[in-house]
Amino acid sequence: MTIQLERSSRTDDPLTLIGRRTPGYSLEAPFYTSREIFDLDVTAIFSEHWLFVAAGAEVSEPGDFVTVDVGPYSVVVVRDDDEEIRAFHNVCRHRGSRILDEDRGSVGNLVCPYHHWTYNVDGRLLHADNQPATFDRSRFGLKPVHVREVAGCVFICLADEPPADFEDVAARIGTYLAPYELARTKVAHQVDIVEAGNWKLVMENNRECYHCDGHPELISAYFPLHGYTAEDVPPRLHRVWERYEKASADLQASCLRQGLPVEGMRELDNRPTGFMVTHAPLDGAGKSYTAGGESVCRKRLGSIADDRFGDLHLHLQPNSWFHMLSDHAVMFSVLPLAPDKSFLRTTWLVHADAVEGVDYDVPTLTAVWSATNAQDSAFVTRTQRGVEDPGYQPGPYSQVEGDVDAFVNWYVARVDAHLSR
Amino acid sequence: MTIQLERSSRTDDPLTLIGRRTPGYSLEAPFYTSREIFDLDVTAIFSEHWLFVAAGAEVSEPGDFVTVDVGPYSVVVVRDDDEEIRAFHNVCRHRGSRILDEDRGSVGNLVCPYHHWTYNVDGRLLHADNQPATFDRSRFGLKPVHVREVAGCVFICLADEPPADFEDVAARIGTYLAPYELARTKVAHQVDIVEAGNWKLVMENNRECYHCDGHPELISAYFPLHGYTAEDVPPRLHRVWERYEKASADLQASCLRQGLPVEGMRELDNRPTGFMVTHAPLDGAGKSYTAGGESVCRKRLGSIADDRFGDLHLHLQPNSWFHMLSDHAVMFSVLPLAPDKSFLRTTWLVHADAVEGVDYDVPTLTAVWSATNAQDSAFVTRTQRGVEDPGYQPGPYSQVEGDVDAFVNWYVARVDAHLSR
Amino acid sequence: MTIQLERSSRTDDPLTLIGRRTPGYSLEAPFYTSREIFDLDVTAIFSEHWLFVAAGAEVSEPGDFVTVDVGPYSVVVVRDDDEEIRAFHNVCRHRGSRILDEDRGSVGNLVCPYHHWTYNVDGRLLHADNQPATFDRSRFGLKPVHVREVAGCVFICLADEPPADFEDVAARIGTYLAPYELARTKVAHQVDIVEAGNWKLVMENNRECYHCDGHPELISAYFPLHGYTAEDVPPRLHRVWERYEKASADLQASCLRQGLPVEGMRELDNRPTGFMVTHAPLDGAGKSYTAGGESVCRKRLGSIADDRFGDLHLHLQPNSWFHMLSDHAVMFSVLPLAPDKSFLRTTWLVHADAVEGVDYDVPTLTAVWSATNAQDSAFVTRTQRGVEDPGYQPGPYSQVEGDVDAFVNWYVARVDAHLSR
Repeated sequence: MTIQLERSSRTDDPLTLIGRRTPGYSLEAPFYTSREIFDLDVTAIFSEHWLFVAAGAEVSEPGDFVTVDVGPYSVVVVRDDDEEIRAFHNVCRHRGSRILDEDRGSVGNLVCPYHHWTYNVDGRLLHADNQPATFDRSRFGLKPVHVREVAGCVFICLADEPPADFEDVAARIGTYLAPYELARTKVAHQVDIVEAGNWKLVMENNRECYHCDGHPELISAYFPLHGYTAEDVPPRLHRVWERYEKASADLQASCLRQGLPVEGMRELDNRPTGFMVTHAPLDGAGKSYTAGGESVCRKRLGSIADDRFGDLHLHLQPNSWFHMLSDHAVMFSVLPLAPDKSFLRTTWLVHADAVEGVDYDVPTLTAVWSATNAQDSAFVTRTQRGVEDPGYQPGPYSQVEGDVDAFVNWYVARVDAHLSR
Repeated sequence: MTIQLERSSRTDDPLTLIGRRTPGYSLEAPFYTSREIFDLDVTAIFSEHWLFVAAGAEVSEPGDFVTVDVGPYSVVVVRDDDEEIRAFHNVCRHRGSRILDEDRGSVGNLVCPYHHWTYNVDGRLLHADNQPATFDRSRFGLKPVHVREVAGCVFICLADEPPADFEDVAARIGTYLAPYELARTKVAHQVDIVEAGNWKLVMENNRECYHCDGHPELISAYFPLHGYTAEDVPPRLHRVWERYEKASADLQASCLRQGLPVEGMRELDNRPTGFMVTHAPLDGAGKSYTAGGESVCRKRLGSIADDRFGDLHLHLQPNSWFHMLSDHAVMFSVLPLAPDKSFLRTTWLVHADAVEGVDYDVPTLTAVWSATNAQDSAFVTRTQRGVEDPGYQPGPYSQVEGDVDAFVNWYVARVDAHLSR
Repeated sequence: MTIQLERSSRTDDPLTLIGRRTPGYSLEAPFYTSREIFDLDVTAIFSEHWLFVAAGAEVSEPGDFVTVDVGPYSVVVVRDDDEEIRAFHNVCRHRGSRILDEDRGSVGNLVCPYHHWTYNVDGRLLHADNQPATFDRSRFGLKPVHVREVAGCVFICLADEPPADFEDVAARIGTYLAPYELARTKVAHQVDIVEAGNWKLVMENNRECYHCDGHPELISAYFPLHGYTAEDVPPRLHRVWERYEKASADLQASCLRQGLPVEGMRELDNRPTGFMVTHAPLDGAGKSYTAGGESVCRKRLGSIADDRFGDLHLHLQPNSWFHMLSDHAVMFSVLPLAPDKSFLRTTWLVHADAVEGVDYDVPTLTAVWSATNAQDSAFVTRTQRGVEDPGYQPGPYSQVEGDVDAFVNWYVARVDAHLSR
């Protein structure tokens, strides 16, 4: 056995690393540790794919904006005067000053604080002092970024030519999301965490429940049948299985009654915009994320007809996942900060008319995922520390880590496609 | 439009970047962000040009010293026993220990605290224990750094052969500075700020008043005519213009009476030691930096005959600027710390005999530039953040940013000269 | 004289630097500052040589473990169920999670907290959930690290093939250490310091007493004759010299009575496992490290027959030194953290049956080396700052820095051997 020290100035080529990957095994260390591959990820993944970055409800009025940092980029997402979503690089066209410092707010025009160059919310340069007669304002509008709002979720793409398959994915996930009417929600709570790990470790951790013993609050909402099929359920879980079968049938019936899809979709690693939708019942009262399965908000979302409507679970490559329940939605967006540092934003949405303290309270609403996020942070931290150790070598995924494998397959294929151009 | 991600491991050659610069536009991002170009700046600019680093009044007595950090260098500036200024690398010739830790102080000899190697303030090694008979002390004196005191301002140059044109510049600016007799001043206050931006952004910010709306305290001392000429002054400012014309005439008359130059000089980008001197009246009482233009110190500097003596403004490439008023002087020195971090020292000087609490008080003396420095820090910070964004591209200077353009032209020419050797 | 700026992106080849070293002079700056050479040190020195990392007394019972960080490596040192010392990479074979976070503790099995892969303390994988029938547990045991316990001192070696001369060194130093019976000691105190300097500066500082004027507490225990021989002792020290001669004769007689070696050994730079042993008397009461030379623990170590048994001083390349006295032992281990940051662990051992508050108290036991460590930290910090300055150039060792020279010679030879393979 040869122990090879991982050098900070390593020269292994990403294509070489990709070429020698063992299928079904975790990635080699440089994918989680090297600055070169981090830069490649920003370019090949985060600059060339559609990224979920905000709920439409965060920018509901004309002039409302959020700023989003994607690696070294800062992007302004703003609702224009026609109530369309716009996105721009948050950089003045004069000498490059950052225009907006705040995470969110509302503006009339976008005015650079340095020399007062003034832009309309549609990006046009309206005014700049002390210019010669030859100055052509139309050449100095804010640089646009592609942006799409899908069923109340805002996606941006930094590429010149975004992946074309997003239209298809948007239509298909839109069918599932539509009844929740996210455009008629509001942000009840939002939390940002800086994870001490590479963004792919954050995603891989999300893509499996092999570690869910570490999430007592979360798993109490689900049937304790993880990893079993009808054939191998042990006798002690037969009654649970019966309960699960009944709840599944109820959920399917409810979907049919409402004219909504019953089956999920899973196209995680065979397309640029990999995605997965599943719809599963919850245990206990079966309504929401609490120990007993009771609701956490009195107002149901959108046109959902049943409190007992399970968990509509959406995964999107590269950087997001969503849980839609009858009474609230939780959305997660991961963005890269450094090889060993990632940003995770968690957003809880409730019906726009729900009143805090009357229809819901934040601690109850957020209890399960606050606990789960903290537990996952610890897992990500210790994995980052481990893969930085020259003693690390890739290990095999278990039978219940298929979605991790799919995420890694997607990632490897996308980097390969980028480098092979 | 192609959005090109700026990689931390970018390979663009500085000469290539220089070659494709658009005249009249700001520099490309790597000049403000890359470690490679930062290192180049330390070598080509800060190690090969004269740098203003201290007032002579800071080291007025034999044995007085200040230590100055220029990039990775630490330099001791010390007054020797013959009252001459000396400068040395602050590194022991034995095993390299830093000799002096303090920013300033007074010593008899320079003694390394590690093994007590002892040097005279002229740099000679006086003593080292436990040496063999063959040890030749004369080979192990402190390594000298070029140093010049010009009209009470201390300049160092780390090069083996400093730019020869400094003698000419020293003589010419000396004519303007002489009547202020800076050697007979004292430091009333000194403040060090770490700016969150590249040193060139700090300098560029200083070289224009296009952003001076952001400096309400500073501009209240000047006539509000920035950007106008006699031809295009708007009617609402005609009375201000008349006031300005009168003050200008008074200032010129005062200069003539005192036998001092009336005209300024501007050789910012056509020589190694680029510089500019202007002499302009102040508004209101016209005496000093206060809202009403009143003096902030009762003792006039040197042989200045008038309280109303305006602002003698000196710019020196690469790293300093000075404001000389009848009652005090303010000096600014910028030194590079990192691609995105710079050191700014501001020093207020008053007459050596002025008594704090009687002739001046520090809060009043420093109010304008303390506020201005803080405002400029914010501008530099947001510009650094913007130029680090791959969405940044160089933009055009306005008609009132000629000295920024001159600074950048000087910088580019000097780097080019260095690399073309 | 040419002042060459040290670039962060320097390209000098380590072999070139080694080739041009001036014998008897300190190393060039990159050896203390460059990331490339730091990585080389981790590979060529710390991954290929035996390192002292713990006292056996720290892991006295089955299941007791310590974790040790060597550069990017984390190693678990654990006593197995047969009371043998084992060492493993602290990395799960599944997806690389760090297994143990704690510095020390006791375990039954080694269980990864992420997905509960469970390993025996002998490294075998005992259990992993949800694996296919084809899963071969024997392929996924913890990766072993070479480990040896020598007279109560634990050494590890990360190399596949550790230096073979360690057996010889272990036997020879074992003869000197045996009577102290370190296996029958306990840790009375342990302190970890992060030094703000390269690991070689920490070692070089330890290898000479040229700077011992800076250690008043330490030198008060020794005869003040440092740097003198019988021939050149000055008149004022003749009585000290007589006292020293008497104490030396007493110490030799005591060794002979106990059947222990009288002479030391010095093979610092001519073998992979460089080492030195000396045995010298102490001044005053001559028993231990206190101002008057009195004991600091009432229980003598092992089979030592005399309280007045001087200081058995052991140096090992690359990273450790030891002081063995009749009543306690102090052990030092240096590990690299970054080019400019090192870890120093100091461990005080007393007889296993000694009772705190009765036989010894920690402040008295640790006073001398706590003070000495703090003083040395300051020296290392200022030397690191100095060698980072481009004004640094290597200087000559004095006549009393022979062991520094030997350390550097050893280091250079070992790096050369590694690179020339």
